[in-house]
Amino acid sequence: MSQVDINKIIEAIKTVIPQNLEKPVALHEPCFHGNEWLYVKDCLDSTFVSSVGKYVDKFEEMLAAFTGAKRAVAVANGTAALQIALKLAGIEQNDEVLIPALTFVATANAVVHCGGIPHFVDSEEKTLGMDPYKLKQYLSEICHVNADGCTNKYTGRKIKAVVPMHTFGHPVDIDPLMEVCKIYKLEMVEDAAESLGSYYKGKHTGTYGKLSILSFNGNKTITTGGGGAILANDEELAKSAKHLTTTAKVPHRWEYWHDHIGYNYRLPNINAALGCAQMEQLPGFLQQKRQLAERYADAFRNIKGIKFFTEPSNSKSNYWLNALLLDDANMKVRDALLLSTNDAGIMTRPCWTLLHKLPMFQDCPRMDLSCAENLEARLINIPSSAFLGEEDA
Amino acid sequence: MSQVDINKIIEAIKTVIPQNLEKPVALHEPCFHGNEWLYVKDCLDSTFVSSVGKYVDKFEEMLAAFTGAKRAVAVANGTAALQIALKLAGIEQNDEVLIPALTFVATANAVVHCGGIPHFVDSEEKTLGMDPYKLKQYLSEICHVNADGCTNKYTGRKIKAVVPMHTFGHPVDIDPLMEVCKIYKLEMVEDAAESLGSYYKGKHTGTYGKLSILSFNGNKTITTGGGGAILANDEELAKSAKHLTTTAKVPHRWEYWHDHIGYNYRLPNINAALGCAQMEQLPGFLQQKRQLAERYADAFRNIKGIKFFTEPSNSKSNYWLNALLLDDANMKVRDALLLSTNDAGIMTRPCWTLLHKLPMFQDCPRMDLSCAENLEARLINIPSSAFLGEEDA
Repeated sequence: MSQVDINKIIEAIKTVIPQNLEKPVALHEPCFHGNEWLYVKDCLDSTFVSSVGKYVDKFEEMLAAFTGAKRAVAVANGTAALQIALKLAGIEQNDEVLIPALTFVATANAVVHCGGIPHFVDSEEKTLGMDPYKLKQYLSEICHVNADGCTNKYTGRKIKAVVPMHTFGHPVDIDPLMEVCKIYKLEMVEDAAESLGSYYKGKHTGTYGKLSILSFNGNKTITTGGGGAILANDEELAKSAKHLTTTAKVPHRWEYWHDHIGYNYRLPNINAALGCAQMEQLPGFLQQKRQLAERYADAFRNIKGIKFFTEPSNSKSNYWLNALLLDDANMKVRDALLLSTNDAGIMTRPCWTLLHKLPMFQDCPRMDLSCAENLEARLINIPSSAFLGEEDA
Repeated sequence: MSQVDINKIIEAIKTVIPQNLEKPVALHEPCFHGNEWLYVKDCLDSTFVSSVGKYVDKFEEMLAAFTGAKRAVAVANGTAALQIALKLAGIEQNDEVLIPALTFVATANAVVHCGGIPHFVDSEEKTLGMDPYKLKQYLSEICHVNADGCTNKYTGRKIKAVVPMHTFGHPVDIDPLMEVCKIYKLEMVEDAAESLGSYYKGKHTGTYGKLSILSFNGNKTITTGGGGAILANDEELAKSAKHLTTTAKVPHRWEYWHDHIGYNYRLPNINAALGCAQMEQLPGFLQQKRQLAERYADAFRNIKGIKFFTEPSNSKSNYWLNALLLDDANMKVRDALLLSTNDAGIMTRPCWTLLHKLPMFQDCPRMDLSCAENLEARLINIPSSAFLGEEDA
């Protein structure tokens, strides 16, 4: 194991991103060089900024066409999307939902918002996502399955679903995970918040289960200001998703009749207008992001003690957030590296604090999380905006 | 009682709203003739469309300054605002919350979203809102109060809060309601979703309790596409509202530490930009809406069998949605009137189906609702967009 040199890391990053910067390089900035103005102005001119408007329908069609999902339902954000997707997957009060410990807090919050209890799963280093083999072994020890489904022997609660999250855009190893779902009668709801434009074995992430979700937060590959979507491969589930996220109102010329407890989770038309313009540019963004990742990979090839994380085999990643992994021997350097890079005007961040360490999730069930803990200690994200990948950037 | 003449009603509406319309007159359309485009374009040019941006802070300051509330916290919509306001008011699983039966479904949904149970209260005709005197009598019969608060004798559950809703912008009779809250140790959380610009005894609605909420949906007096706000008269509650609605993240240069189950309910900067431009025009909108209401009042002064609803005494209403009330003898005409007006290109609607009639709320506790039922049978809303009140409209 070789000692890592922080200055060499900063120099390597600087060879990739623009040199003479007047302001710090952000971790991920959006880019509005397409039809954003045109579509947003059309909303203002027509006064259709809210729930009624053509851009929501158009945005949903574009998302379905791009991902290959049967239907997409645009909603206010990724958390809302996951809450409703889990509800439609059958999660009820006190059901356990298997989610990675290494994910953004929204994954766990969405489980709690629909009454469920997060149950934390370890990651594997090759994908940064759920380890399907370790999960399979773990479930064989802690649960029993019968005609009613899967029950946790220790808590007595139902385990209903698995939520793999495609970390920083890198696809989870889905095939063995789907096998686990089959054995243990679990629904798979993909958290594809970070992986628009990422493919596993040639098929878009978020199209493997019956339901999955996307996010268009300001720091994502495309943005709508704030926004998300539910992807569904079942027409009836998509209709239910639309109904529940729009106050469960039954259509009528003037009557107000609602047939379920509903949510106000629709995406406003003005945000969808932004989304349509961003979707038009998505192929270009993905190409730029791939170029940026390749240049980072080149720049770090000969830096000792640290490696640039590349997409898992069988997968094509959108490289949403680029990541460096310190060697085990160098993990103690992480905080110094975060400090030095941020002080140098290069925004970097660690991965999220593992969720089982947060006060509100400390008592949730969990398996051994040693790989996730190791990754948390070694990983930092580096600037990843698409425009940094332009040839002349 | 005189028979009502539908043709005369349509003619009266037509004397008020523009005559030669190419398309149907909407119930309520927004108006973007201010700085909307300038501010939205500034968001796109700066790329600050999402969570980071100056317009959210500015919008919150404008809302607090206009209403006189100590602090305003901008959020995704009115439902989200009410859910969090109720949570901060102490609503826990299975607590009962007193809300009007005559309100939009979001009031009840928000109660359920924070674990509470709606308990329906009757309205009074002079305000269209909660009847404080009838509520006082009812509570004296069904609950007992001790040091722990108020308990429903029949369900055994705590009754924790009252949510008066200022219907169509007309203020509830707040003083006697606050007296009821004092006697029965209830928190008052005002649902001022419809009453931005409405005052009770010279003080803005939504500033009487510790917490209240506003809505900026597309059909409201001002709009942000979709949006809402929590108003707080307590600095600590406002801070908690901001914290909970932004994933409960503890500020740090790079660390992801969250200390509560949080929500992704923030208002995107691009929607707040729209809100800032709309707030600048609010005084003008209110003036136009008052002119429109006065012209409706004039037009209906001599129409028999129906009356134009005017603001309660002691109050100044924003006249968000103008309303007609059929005389009791003519209530059976309501549906024919809805049909004739809509067929004539004048969009009208009844008030909401009373919430205790909806399938998901049928088993919720409720008092006698005879006044609300009577109002539901007699009321229709007529076109109310601010620009219809312009002198040359």
